[in-house]
Amino acid sequence: MAWFNQTGAESDVVISSRIRFARNIAGIPFPGRMTDAQRSEVIEKVTKALSPANLETIDMVAKSPLEAQSLVEEHFISPAFAREKAPHTLLLSADRTAAVMIGEEDHVRIQTILPGLSLGEAYKAACTLDDLLDGGAEIAYSEDVGYLTQCPTNLGTAMRASVMLHLPAMTLAGQIGSVARSLSKLGITVRGLYGEGSEAAGALYQVSNSITMGLTEQEILDKLEKVARQLVESERKLRDTLKSDSFARLCDRVMRAFGVMKNAYMLSSEEFLKLWSDVRLGVSLGMITDIDYAKLGGILIAALPATLLLTAGSPEDTPAAERDVLRAKAVREAAA
Amino acid sequence: MAWFNQTGAESDVVISSRIRFARNIAGIPFPGRMTDAQRSEVIEKVTKALSPANLETIDMVAKSPLEAQSLVEEHFISPAFAREKAPHTLLLSADRTAAVMIGEEDHVRIQTILPGLSLGEAYKAACTLDDLLDGGAEIAYSEDVGYLTQCPTNLGTAMRASVMLHLPAMTLAGQIGSVARSLSKLGITVRGLYGEGSEAAGALYQVSNSITMGLTEQEILDKLEKVARQLVESERKLRDTLKSDSFARLCDRVMRAFGVMKNAYMLSSEEFLKLWSDVRLGVSLGMITDIDYAKLGGILIAALPATLLLTAGSPEDTPAAERDVLRAKAVREAAA
Repeated sequence: MAWFNQTGAESDVVISSRIRFARNIAGIPFPGRMTDAQRSEVIEKVTKALSPANLETIDMVAKSPLEAQSLVEEHFISPAFAREKAPHTLLLSADRTAAVMIGEEDHVRIQTILPGLSLGEAYKAACTLDDLLDGGAEIAYSEDVGYLTQCPTNLGTAMRASVMLHLPAMTLAGQIGSVARSLSKLGITVRGLYGEGSEAAGALYQVSNSITMGLTEQEILDKLEKVARQLVESERKLRDTLKSDSFARLCDRVMRAFGVMKNAYMLSSEEFLKLWSDVRLGVSLGMITDIDYAKLGGILIAALPATLLLTAGSPEDTPAAERDVLRAKAVREAAA
Repeated sequence: MAWFNQTGAESDVVISSRIRFARNIAGIPFPGRMTDAQRSEVIEKVTKALSPANLETIDMVAKSPLEAQSLVEEHFISPAFAREKAPHTLLLSADRTAAVMIGEEDHVRIQTILPGLSLGEAYKAACTLDDLLDGGAEIAYSEDVGYLTQCPTNLGTAMRASVMLHLPAMTLAGQIGSVARSLSKLGITVRGLYGEGSEAAGALYQVSNSITMGLTEQEILDKLEKVARQLVESERKLRDTLKSDSFARLCDRVMRAFGVMKNAYMLSSEEFLKLWSDVRLGVSLGMITDIDYAKLGGILIAALPATLLLTAGSPEDTPAAERDVLRAKAVREAAA
């Protein structure tokens, strides 16, 4: 079951944990300069090396833009991978916790995503795939700079560890900006998952290591885990304060959001994310009891533009008003 | 069962029909000049005359201000009757369709209220009580000016016939003002039931005859019934136009109102009436199916300030925020 349909550790604040390794095969140019023949060679080599893992092989060229975009929304592929025109392949585990992009910015991007705060497990799962890859192909590695990657910011461990956090109370309190500035000095990046500007839509944030060199993988994981736990504590304290200081207003806000979510006939993406965030906050405070985190995770993905249209069997150019009707319907049905 | 818990003819637009007769007993001064002894005499005489009707006798002096105000909200007594300090008595039928005020502006005010458009039936029920009164007391009547009443605007038939209408589409279309002006030339008064200003809260209006002299009772009833039927037709046409011209937006509006009504933790009286009106419109258009007019009628009365506090067992001076929490709870429970 995919990360968004499950509940993990610290699920009141942490949505998911993700590990990504970038790898390239020695002796073949980076994807930006590969011929189509070399691309096919890489795809074949990697697919074969990882075959013991029993991943589903998805030829991305055969996928429609809507199908590709839906995979982006599920966090299984990157936007760049969805846009790629040359041959590129996705390997996806049956339980949707592991996804390997072949032919993205690097030859191979191994990714694992687990629900809740579970960096250690996600790292272990990624290592298992990395070991298989290592056994079937010679990986470009230098003693000096570590794993060789197309973009120098990934050199070294070539590992990006990230946690997706739901921080509605910190967002309401206007604390995200200063927290993000402090964390950037520690080599940790905070960015809103949806929307531009200071307030992330849905109060969803991705917190990840910005530095891949000079630290071991374990050091990166430990630092990120520590930061994540601090954010979880701050968010919980603020939620408790909100609850005790303005119970009626907060309860009213989350219950109305729940009522609108279950009844609206039209929902824009922006409004939906606001409602979703309020409802999730309400669940965490025990104010809303007839929906849970796993169901809310499923609703979040179901309501995102491409997944929505794909599920409804509607074309990519469906007008906004119709899309809002479809979104409201999908949300109503999923919340029922 | 009271008018608000039932459904009658044309219930999609007409909430209730009401008849009121003003009567005074010959040889006793009008209430404004009565001694307390004369008041008691009137109360005794009228109660005895109406005893075959098996009405409950309610000594209003023993009622708390909140209980009296709740009876105003249920339309069984007038605000002036609720404020009266001298002895005054209410006779109320077990089925809550007939209410007789003794010691209001006139000695006797006979009132009947039935759900839906049912002026004829309400008139017949009022006449039955009037005949009993006639048999037990000499009523002040003159061949020249008809029934003698304290206020000259009630002379003649001393009958006020009224219908309570729900006109959300005409309100949205901004047509109430011009309709009210036209009707006033015909001797028909239109006034918002709740709230001041141009837009009546809840889109609820009372339409009644302003003239009691120069027409027979039947002529007054026929004219009001005709006007009511015209308003019903206009409202229905506008609702259909709204539905076909902007289905999605209308459906979204009424469904959100329903969602908020069923989930909010705080509801002001003003917001409640807006939601109530939208939900009732949604029921009439078949958009909302899991609530009916009778239930909505009950919710309307339950949410009004005095009835709300009385039911909750809360004091008259309950702060507004607490009242809003109580109202939301009462509405949620009644709508469930």
